[in-house]
Formats: sequence, structure tokens, C-alpha cells
Amino acid sequence: MCARFIKSKHFFEEGMVESLAEVSEANGKVWDEDAELDVVGKGVSRIDGYDKVSGTAKYTFDIKLPNMAHAKILRCPHPHARIKRIDTSKALNLKGVLAIHSHQNTPTIPWFWNMSQLYDAHLRYQGDEVATVVAETERIASEAIKLIEVDYEVLPFVLDPSEAMKDDAPKLYEQGNILRGKPDIYERGDIEKGMAEADMIVEDKFSTQVEVHHPTEVHCSVVNWDGDRLTVYDSTQGIFAVRDTVASSLKIPTSHVRVIKKYMGGGFGSKLDTGKYTVIAALLAREIGRPVRIAMDRKEMNQSVGNRPDSFQHLKIGAKKDGTLTALSHYSIGSSGAYPSGAGCSWPMRSVYQCDNVKTTDFSVLINAGQGRAFRAPGHVQGTFGMESIIDMMAEKIGMDPLEFRLINYAEQDQVSRQPYTSKKLREAYEQGAKAIGWWDRRQKVPGGMPGPLKRGIGMATQIWWGGGGPPAYATMKLNRDGSLDVLAGTQDLGTGTYTFIAQVAAEVLEIPMDQISVIIGDTATCPYCASSGGSTTAPSVAPAVKDAGEQMKEKLLSAAAAIMETSLTNMTYWGGKISLISDPSTSMDISAIMQKMNERILVTTGRRSANPDGYAINTFGAQFAEVEVDIQTGKIHVLRIVAAHDIGRVLNQQMLENQFHGGIIQGLGFALLEERVMDPYTGTLLTMNMCDYKMPTMMDTPQIDVIIVSKSDPLISDVGAKGIGEPAMIPTAAAIANAVYNAIGVRMKSLPITPNKVLDALNA
Amino acid sequence: MCARFIKSKHFFEEGMVESLAEVSEANGKVWDEDAELDVVGKGVSRIDGYDKVSGTAKYTFDIKLPNMAHAKILRCPHPHARIKRIDTSKALNLKGVLAIHSHQNTPTIPWFWNMSQLYDAHLRYQGDEVATVVAETERIASEAIKLIEVDYEVLPFVLDPSEAMKDDAPKLYEQGNILRGKPDIYERGDIEKGMAEADMIVEDKFSTQVEVHHPTEVHCSVVNWDGDRLTVYDSTQGIFAVRDTVASSLKIPTSHVRVIKKYMGGGFGSKLDTGKYTVIAALLAREIGRPVRIAMDRKEMNQSVGNRPDSFQHLKIGAKKDGTLTALSHYSIGSSGAYPSGAGCSWPMRSVYQCDNVKTTDFSVLINAGQGRAFRAPGHVQGTFGMESIIDMMAEKIGMDPLEFRLINYAEQDQVSRQPYTSKKLREAYEQGAKAIGWWDRRQKVPGGMPGPLKRGIGMATQIWWGGGGPPAYATMKLNRDGSLDVLAGTQDLGTGTYTFIAQVAAEVLEIPMDQISVIIGDTATCPYCASSGGSTTAPSVAPAVKDAGEQMKEKLLSAAAAIMETSLTNMTYWGGKISLISDPSTSMDISAIMQKMNERILVTTGRRSANPDGYAINTFGAQFAEVEVDIQTGKIHVLRIVAAHDIGRVLNQQMLENQFHGGIIQGLGFALLEERVMDPYTGTLLTMNMCDYKMPTMMDTPQIDVIIVSKSDPLISDVGAKGIGEPAMIPTAAAIANAVYNAIGVRMKSLPITPNKVLDALNA
Repeated sequence: MCARFIKSKHFFEEGMVESLAEVSEANGKVWDEDAELDVVGKGVSRIDGYDKVSGTAKYTFDIKLPNMAHAKILRCPHPHARIKRIDTSKALNLKGVLAIHSHQNTPTIPWFWNMSQLYDAHLRYQGDEVATVVAETERIASEAIKLIEVDYEVLPFVLDPSEAMKDDAPKLYEQGNILRGKPDIYERGDIEKGMAEADMIVEDKFSTQVEVHHPTEVHCSVVNWDGDRLTVYDSTQGIFAVRDTVASSLKIPTSHVRVIKKYMGGGFGSKLDTGKYTVIAALLAREIGRPVRIAMDRKEMNQSVGNRPDSFQHLKIGAKKDGTLTALSHYSIGSSGAYPSGAGCSWPMRSVYQCDNVKTTDFSVLINAGQGRAFRAPGHVQGTFGMESIIDMMAEKIGMDPLEFRLINYAEQDQVSRQPYTSKKLREAYEQGAKAIGWWDRRQKVPGGMPGPLKRGIGMATQIWWGGGGPPAYATMKLNRDGSLDVLAGTQDLGTGTYTFIAQVAAEVLEIPMDQISVIIGDTATCPYCASSGGSTTAPSVAPAVKDAGEQMKEKLLSAAAAIMETSLTNMTYWGGKISLISDPSTSMDISAIMQKMNERILVTTGRRSANPDGYAINTFGAQFAEVEVDIQTGKIHVLRIVAAHDIGRVLNQQMLENQFHGGIIQGLGFALLEERVMDPYTGTLLTMNMCDYKMPTMMDTPQIDVIIVSKSDPLISDVGAKGIGEPAMIPTAAAIANAVYNAIGVRMKSLPITPNKVLDALNA
Repeated sequence: MCARFIKSKHFFEEGMVESLAEVSEANGKVWDEDAELDVVGKGVSRIDGYDKVSGTAKYTFDIKLPNMAHAKILRCPHPHARIKRIDTSKALNLKGVLAIHSHQNTPTIPWFWNMSQLYDAHLRYQGDEVATVVAETERIASEAIKLIEVDYEVLPFVLDPSEAMKDDAPKLYEQGNILRGKPDIYERGDIEKGMAEADMIVEDKFSTQVEVHHPTEVHCSVVNWDGDRLTVYDSTQGIFAVRDTVASSLKIPTSHVRVIKKYMGGGFGSKLDTGKYTVIAALLAREIGRPVRIAMDRKEMNQSVGNRPDSFQHLKIGAKKDGTLTALSHYSIGSSGAYPSGAGCSWPMRSVYQCDNVKTTDFSVLINAGQGRAFRAPGHVQGTFGMESIIDMMAEKIGMDPLEFRLINYAEQDQVSRQPYTSKKLREAYEQGAKAIGWWDRRQKVPGGMPGPLKRGIGMATQIWWGGGGPPAYATMKLNRDGSLDVLAGTQDLGTGTYTFIAQVAAEVLEIPMDQISVIIGDTATCPYCASSGGSTTAPSVAPAVKDAGEQMKEKLLSAAAAIMETSLTNMTYWGGKISLISDPSTSMDISAIMQKMNERILVTTGRRSANPDGYAINTFGAQFAEVEVDIQTGKIHVLRIVAAHDIGRVLNQQMLENQFHGGIIQGLGFALLEERVMDPYTGTLLTMNMCDYKMPTMMDTPQIDVIIVSKSDPLISDVGAKGIGEPAMIPTAAAIANAVYNAIGVRMKSLPITPNKVLDALNA
């Protein structure tokens, strides 16, 4: 019997194993590549599907509390200023206004790595928080903020990070505009030697724009004090992170703060950090003794809740004639915005390809614009565009197929840590993806070689990401006497399907129907701790914790059954939600019967995600292949198809996995072709304030998407063997599209987004 | 060191113990009589106090859900009838009506011990459920039920249980009106022989009225389906009982039903059973696809949600001249109402006094009136009135002081099981209570002997109840890294203080401030199972589970600290929320430091109430002493003072304990003098339909109340040693008042309530 885990009931009842002894022996705890699973991996429908399609699902935005007041923030109209005076008297006189807070009447609460504070009199971008009005209605609050009189000392500003690095640039902070005062430098081997050894060198510059997250649900909080206890309904990616930040900001114990989030309309990283607005609302609610709701509008979503930093990359790589890479050099400048946030993008260059001589230099630069924040694979999306462009350029220079070139430089171990990977199936992803897109047959032999104005091309790009997850992640199971189950975990569902995979894993372990299981997540008071949902870590962290709780539950039941039958544990086996003597299946008792005999009304276990193995690198890998059609008359690019071939460990739910890939790829397409935050260089103000000026992809832009998963499990990382998929899905898309555009038109586009104007300009050049 | 449990921080830091070794040795797990506790037992304020006094506390009655509809029940106008036809067409045409349910269009759901069903075409009392309308508003629903046309076949009815026992009485059920077809008979020894051995025999009849619970918050549910999952907000004494009944009624897994109750305005037993209205609302909500609220009005509260059965007691007891009881005979008839409910009241006669020859006979009889239901010490309140009256009569006949007579017949062991008590301090209660009231000095030597129209008297009565609680009861602790704590338990707070004592016990065990603790109860989905709150079992069941969770938590921390310090567990000690080497207090680490080193973000334990000890009877004991003033011109009784002296094990919270005693005694006073459900014998309808006709005691009726607790702990029953107090507080009050009235006026009142009319009639007789 090769499988270590066997769906025992299934196999035994169908006569596929001869005895329960065999079942018992085979019924191991690790779901390895050969594990035959009933529920996990299948495309079962979301358990929260009804709530969502029926409209009964309650998002934070929908929370209404009795006597709730509404807050609205007055934001700085200047890119750089200092508050000289605030006069709130007129605003306070407006009927329905309850209170107004600013730096004048609130405690000093450190914010942004202690480089600023909740209300800071030094305002560093157009959108910085000046004051907040709480009123009976949102409309009154909006009216009232116009009545607040502020005298600003307007200061000189800087928007361009290269300009901001200069000594004579306007300074956002005394210590200067370069984050930490110096770049983040990584080196291995000898970059000069590597370049010297090269037969060919390619050097070029690439740039990417600032991208705004724009989740469907805006950022919002509803806060409510009961005495000294605070309940926060928050649209957040990290309920415990919000709990801890709010508690430390207000200097109260964490158990005094309960953060609740049932459903959420996306975050993409913008909701990883605790919003100032949450603490702002808590302070106001405490003052007025009423619940307070605060919700960003789309203007604020464009301006003040984070973005993907831009990047200005100067890349130089060397290779021998046989295709071996000898040197990789990456130099980039990215803008953090007005508050600290890493803007580096060199990780792909450090890690994707086998190369002994590498140097990367990342500058994160503070400028007078909205702060950068983690955005779906921070740095990787930008860096992969630059790197995978120049890799293609080098392959062309050598006269080699780009995929062949990548295979020659395949990294068999982690390039930074020099550790082996727990598993790596990138080669299989290359092969299967290439086959699906028709890489060897359908790609233009000569870039731009297709006749006529509509030119097609095919390109590809590689993806690397972490995503093994890890502790801390806990899950509590409450088994009821009728065999039904409640599972609690302090994680959150960003819209990705956390509810469902938890139920799947629980059903799989305990071999009970999913229908018997209820899942409670998103509540710091009632659920055990889980980390924030970022970095594609939720499923790989939480699923093993759920499995562990289930394994403990089986052990409890087995021990009890052994005691009831007055025999030793080793004689007992669990199969199909029942327990029996190994020697005699007819002795089987179901969960109800055992609990009845145990005189227990409930059995509770709390499982824990075990640590990742020492000495290994854990990564996901993948390649995406794009086919595009470019109209060289209009410059318009039509993405026809994306093939995504990935190694992501175990699939937990085929349907949800495809959803995630579709979302990531469409977001990558938006980054490649459409989305861009535009600032006015003359006034320092934001020009893309709405969803008309800031262009996001729609149904009409969506290509055919094919998802191929080449992995079955990664059993070294956890008993479940699942890795993350949220970020891998997006990382290579823009790079693959750019390489396909080159294949179509024979001209390389080095600046994202690749707009029709840029295409026409490049063709004309 | 006599104390097995020591507040280690306190003692060590104040130099009261010499070394941590001594602390460690003394820091035992059982809180015995000598235990010195910091928080438990103290009169700390309720942690839910702010919510309640600020009006932010949300009771079930306050729950409003978006799109919520409202239901109202059409109740039978006849005491006994059968539905021939229901026509809902006119009602359905009323604008705003959404659906109407009756037995015609709902599944058959068994109810009342399978003797009836949710909607039964056979209607057995004025108030039985005929149909339910759900509409946009409660007002529309109320209008609509008037438009439902019902043809009733009106049947003969019976209200008097003695009449109902006769063969020719109208039958509520085919099998007859006597519950189970026969009385509940208990015998020990030889009652005839006992009577024969007596020097004196006293025989008399006593009766008590039907009493209605009338909690402040009416019975209500708000139900909401999400697909096949049901959330029930319910004003209930048993969230898990409601979950299980609703799930089995609707034939869905228990994990599909989530029952939530945060705050509650009392129950007194009327909310122990799951209300029909809850399942009725769930069926309607499923049909209309909207949340449904259903709340009883005061008329329904008087009529349809339970009561304390009446009793007609025929008692006969024998004693020797020296005061030794030789025989106790109890015969009673009580009315169950229209549906099965035990109405016996003989338990005090079986168990309070030492006597070898006892026979009790209890008839529970079905009549055409609202169903009886558990009401604060079911049976005991009625039975104690009869028994303690006739005990006083016997003492007088013998010429002995009533208290002396009781002490002669003191039961040293449980009279029914013949087992020893875990502890019994009734003698101390007698002594201290008698002293406080001035029993030996101030009581009338000659009953009615005080001159003038205002006559004072003093009387007493004895109480016995269970109240040790027991499993199943579980509590989960989640310890956060900042040392703050969340405690979860699937119990409920009826208004009695469950939130607070849980926090007290947790604070005591972990030696952390109460302020650091949050308590979550009243939610079946997130909290581990606890039993319903009835029988005064909540505190004695839940407190030890909380303590156990805390002890497990300390063990986790101690083990971790031992591992961190690379030493054995036996070298470590826990004191003052910190852990150190026994040999070196300077090594102490607090919870945060240990968890940081453990790399744990949370520690979770689930504690369990251990089983009660075998071979023991667990009871509470007490005596109440009443002083009354009777105006023999008006018959009005003024209760001046009640002294309540009780053995209830450990006091968890002095303030909450006194609250409970005040409530119980005032409720007992209402039973003694005021409250009575009155039916019209000619029409079979209820005459006391409102709070004007049904008289409850108010502030003006409240006497001075002194509570004396003679016990410190009952360590045999649990590590906490607490017993229940809710019911003990009420049991003897009416009997003590009745005996005091006799002492005042020299005429014995044998029928409750003792109204002015009855007093005048008795004085005139």
C-alpha cells in the first residue's frame, strides 16, 4: 500500500484493503503526494456561498449599531505643509456635529515606525489626516470638515524619488528622504568578476508605475465601547494585528479589544496594517460615548490607504555564449511615499536563476505622496517585470529560445540561503505551460513578424514566492454529541475561501460530511490566534492547525473508545467517522455513541501549526505564458490568453484555486496595461482621484485563463502540504504580457503600464 | 501553614512565608475552608455593570436585524376545543402580511413529551397556539390574527385538579388526566407503625396558589437563516438546550444552529424549556427568507409560558412527647396545566427531618390551563410551606419551642439515600439566624399575645435544596501574550452575575487583575458546552471548570518555564502571575516573557468540571426567620424583617450573593402574600391577564433583609467548593412568614397567598 494516508472507510468498505489492521497501519498523519483525499482538493462550493449570493452576508461596511455616529476625516490639501492653527468653532456649531479631534486635543500616539503620530502637525502629503469630525450622519460630518479653518504653512514638496534623494531636495524628515539613510544592498560572489567572465552583457532601464489596491469593499471600521471594553468591526487582513495595535495605541490590555470581521471585500495588502482611522474612531467613540462608523470614500482609497510603490530599475546581466548566467546586477529606486515603507524589488533577481555573482541595490525613498504598502507580492511584481524582460533580451542576444535559456540557468537550490528546496517543480511548470500555449509552434520566430496591423505574439515569465506559511496558527474544534462540529480559528477570509478550506480539512480528517461542520473565524475574543492574512500564508498556516486539532480529536476518541472497550489503544482504529477494534469491524461505535459513553457533551481540542523544517527553503514556483494581439495602428493590446502553470504544493479546493488565479492574473493584466496613479508634478496633487481616471480591468479585458497545477503536495512543510497561491498568481503576469508584446511587435516596452500611446511612440521611434 | 491554598504573591512579598518552597508546597489546588482568597468571595462589582447602567446592554428583546419581520401567535380563546377549519385568506390579504402557519401547513413536530405537537388541532387551554402570522410589523401581525377565521369545536373543560382526577371529568388526553396514570409515591419505614408509635398526631390541609414567573424581560426570540444555518437570539436559560431542541425539531445537525444570548432579564425557570415560539419563528423565517422576531406580550406571559403549579396538601405527622418525629405523611394534588409537568411538592417532607417512617403521595393532574413549568425551587416552595406549618403546629402541641423541636429532629445524614452529606451547617444557620432575629427574646410567648390592633410575631422555616452542580461544564481560556485573558464558557447569565464570577475565579487562579480578563458566554458556536442554568447549578458547575482551565494554564506555563530554564518542573513555582525557580525568586518571568520565549501568541486550555464525589449527598441548607406586623383591623400583613441564615458552601461574590437573596426573599414574600393566578371557573378563562390584576411585590413591600452565610467552602464537591444560591434564597420565605403570622395573631393561615381577606376571615372564624 503506497499511500500513507488512506480514506479508510472508502477503501475498507469497497474491499480495497483486506483488514482494518491494514487501514490502521496506512492511516498516517501526513498527506503526502500519494494521499487519496475525499474532500480536500475537490472543487466543493464555498460554504459561505449562500450568504454572499443572497445578499445576507454582512461586511464591515454593512454594520449598523444602535445610536451609531459617523466620522469623516479632514485631509491636508497640500503636498507638504505644517499646521499653524486650527479653528473648529464653526464646525462645532453645525447642528449634528458631536466632536472634533485633531493634534490639538488628542494624546500623542506614535505611528509609522515612530516617525510620525496619529495626528501630526507636520503634514507630508495631500491626504494627510488633519482633523476628524464625528456627527449624527456622514453627510453632516462631510459638511462640517469644510467649516474647519486651518492655517497651513505650505512647504516645498518633492514627488520624484530620484529628485528626493538629492541633498537639496525638500526634506520630509530631518534625517533625510532615503529610508534608513542608505539603500538595501545584497551581494554574493563578485559582480565585477562575473561581468568580466561574460561573453555577452545586456544593460537596460525599466520602470513601473504606482498601482492602487482598490479592493471592492472600502476601508472601514465600526467601533463601540462598553465601559473600558472596545469592540472593533474592521475590514482587515489581520484581526489580531488590529487588536494589538489598537490596544497598544490606547494603552489598554489586548483582552479589552475585540476585533470582529466576518466577511470582507478584498484587501490585497492595503488592509494588512491597522488603519489610523480605526484608532481615530475609537478615540471619538470614547469621547462621545456612542458607536462610531468611519468609512473611506473612493477618493481616500486612491489617496490614503496605500499603494504599490513605483520602481526605476537599472539592470545589467552577463552570460556566456552557452547561455550560462555569470552576473546579475540590479539597481532600483522606488518611492515609499510620505511614510516609511519598503520599495525594493530585487528579490526575483537574487533568487530565480542560478548565478554565483549577484549584486542588488534597492533605494526606498520618501516623497510627498500617499504611503506605499504591501500589495500582492510586494516588489516581486515590479522586479519580475524588469528581470524577465532583460532575461528575454539576453536570450535573444545569444540567439537562444527564452525558455531554453531559463532552463540552462535553472536554480536547483535556493540561491540566497544555499539550502535545498522542500520541493521544486518549476521545470514541470515550464514544460506543461509551454505545451498548453503552443510555445514551440505558435510563437513568432521573428518578433513582429506577423503580417498586417494585428500582430500576435507569445511571451512568458517565471515566478518565485514564499508561501509555506508557518506558526503561529491555531484552530479549536468543538465536537458535539451528534457528531457535528464547530471549528474556530482567529484567521480571516479576505474573500479567498478560508471558511471553506477549514471545513474541508476538518471533514477530511474526521471523515464526517462537510455539511456537519460550522466554521467561526474573524473574532479575536472567541477564536484562537492566527497571524494576519498576507504573504499567501493563510491556507498553508491554518490548514495544518485544523488538521492537528482533528488528529488530536481522533486520538481523544480512540483513547476513550479503548477505555470503554477495556482494551489498549493499539487495538483500536478510526475509520469513516467511527471507531472499532482493528480485529472486529462489527464493534464500531460512532462519535455520538462514544461521547454518550464518555458522558461528555462536547470534546474540545486546539491544534497548532507545527514549525517548518530546518535547513530548507520553502517556495512556490510557476510560469505564466501570455498570448497577445497588438493593433499597431491604435497601439491597443488585447491579451488573448494566459496559461498559468504553477507548483503550489497541495490544492485545497480546485474551484477556489482557479478563482484566485483568475483574480491575480486579471490584476496583473491591469498592472501591465491599465492602472496608474498619476500625480500633478506642478501642484503635487493626485490626478487619479476616481475610478474613471484610475483605470482598472473589467470583464471586457479578461482573457482566456488556463490554470495548470503541477504539484500534488509538499509534505515536508506540513502534514497538509499546501503552499500559498494568492501572490504567485499575479507575479509573472505583467512580465509575460510584456514579453509577448515584444514577440508580437518586435519593439520592447520597458515602462508599465503599456498604454496604446507608449506602444505607438515605441513603434514610431 | 494551615491554608492549603495561599495567595502566594501576597504572602511571599509580605514576608508571611519564608521561602518560595513553602509557597509552592502550600499552593494547593483545592480551595478549602481555610483558603485565603484575594478576589473570590469579595463583593467586587459586576463586570457587566457599565453595559447595564449605561443602557448599552443588548438583551434579546433589543435585537434588530436588517429586514426583520415580526410574528404574532393566534391563541385559542376557549379552555378546550378542537380546530375544525382555519381560513387565513382574509388575513393573508392584509397589506404587510408575509405568511401564516398553522397545523394545516407545517410539519408535525412532536412537543410536550410527544403528547402533543408544535401546532396541535386539539387545543387544551385558553392560550394554546392556533396559528402564527408573520408580517412587516408587529402591529400588522396583531391585526392579521384577528382576521383569521377559525371554526372551533368547543369541548367541556376542567380546571380543578381534584375534579379532573375523577373518571367522569372531561379528558385532556385519551389516557386520562393523571400524569403517568398514577401518583408519585415514596415510602420508607412503616408509616402506620410510625403513627402508632406517636404520642401526638397533627393532621391538616394546606394549599398554595398558581404563581406566574414574570421575569422582567419577556420571552422572545429573533431567528435568522443563512442558507441552511440558523442563528437564534433567544432569551433562554439554556443556550445548548435550545440549540439541541431546535436542531432536532427541524432535523438538522446541531452545528447548524447557533444560539446566542448575551444579556437576559431573568427566567426563574420559565425559560428553561425551549419555547414553541422559537421553532415557530424558525419555520416562518425559513419560509419567507427573512429574519423573524417573536416576543410575548404580558398577556401571553400570564397565560402561556409556564407557572408554579398549585398544591393541595393533606399532611399528617406523629411525634413522641420528647419531640422525636415518628411518622411523616404527605398527600398532595397539584395541577400540571394542559401539558405534562410534574407538580409534586413532597421532597422537603422526605428529606429535611430525621424520621424513619415516611410516606409521600404526589398527584400531578392535567387541567385546561396554562402548563406548569420549573419555577425557582419547584415543589420545595409549596412543600416547605405545608411541612413547616405543621411542624410548628406539632411543636406547639407538644409544648416545645419550634426551633428546639427542629433541632431534636436534625437529620445528620441524607434521609432518602442514607448517605452522609458532603457538609451540613444547618445547626449553625439556626443558631446565628435565631440570634439575629432575637428568637429567644422577642418572639411572642403566647401567639397573638401582643396588645392592640398591630400585632407582631416572629416565625421561622427550614430550607433544603441540591445545588452542588456538576458536569458537564467546560470553560476555555485564551491567554494572550500581554498577559490578558479571554475566558469562554457556554453558560448564560440570567442576570445573576455569571460574567463576574467567571472573571473572579480566573483572576484568582492565575493571580492576574480582573481588569485583564474578558468573559464570553452565551454563544453555542464559540463557547464550550455548559448545561442549562436551572436548579441553582450554574456557579457550582462553571466555576470549577474555569478554575480547572486556569490550573491547566499554570501547568503549561510552568512546564514551558522549566524547559526555558533547563530545569525540572519540580524546581519551579507560580506566584503572583509570575514564574520563578523555587530557590531563586529573582529568576521570575512574567506571562509575557514566557510566551515570548515559547514563541506562542496564545495559550489555550479547556477546563472541565470534575464529577461529584461518590457516596455523598450534596445539599444546601438554611433557615429564614421572619418578623411580621399584622393589622387585625384590615388584615394587612407587613413583613418587617427577614433574616436568612444559610449554608451554601463558598461565597463567590458577597454583593451578588446578597442580590440573589434579596430577589429570592422578595419573590417568596410575593408568593406568601400577593401573587395568584386566578381562573374563572365558569368560562375557564384567565382573569389575571395583566400586571394590575396579577399583583407582584414592589419596593413598598420589601422588608429589611439580613443575609448570614455560615459556610466557608464545601471542598468535597469541587476545588472551588461553591454551591447554588438562587433557589435556597426563596424556599423558606413563605413558610417563615406564615409561621410569623401565626405567632402574631394566634390563628394559623393554611392557604397562600395570605391576603387581608383571608386574615380577616380567619380572625372572624
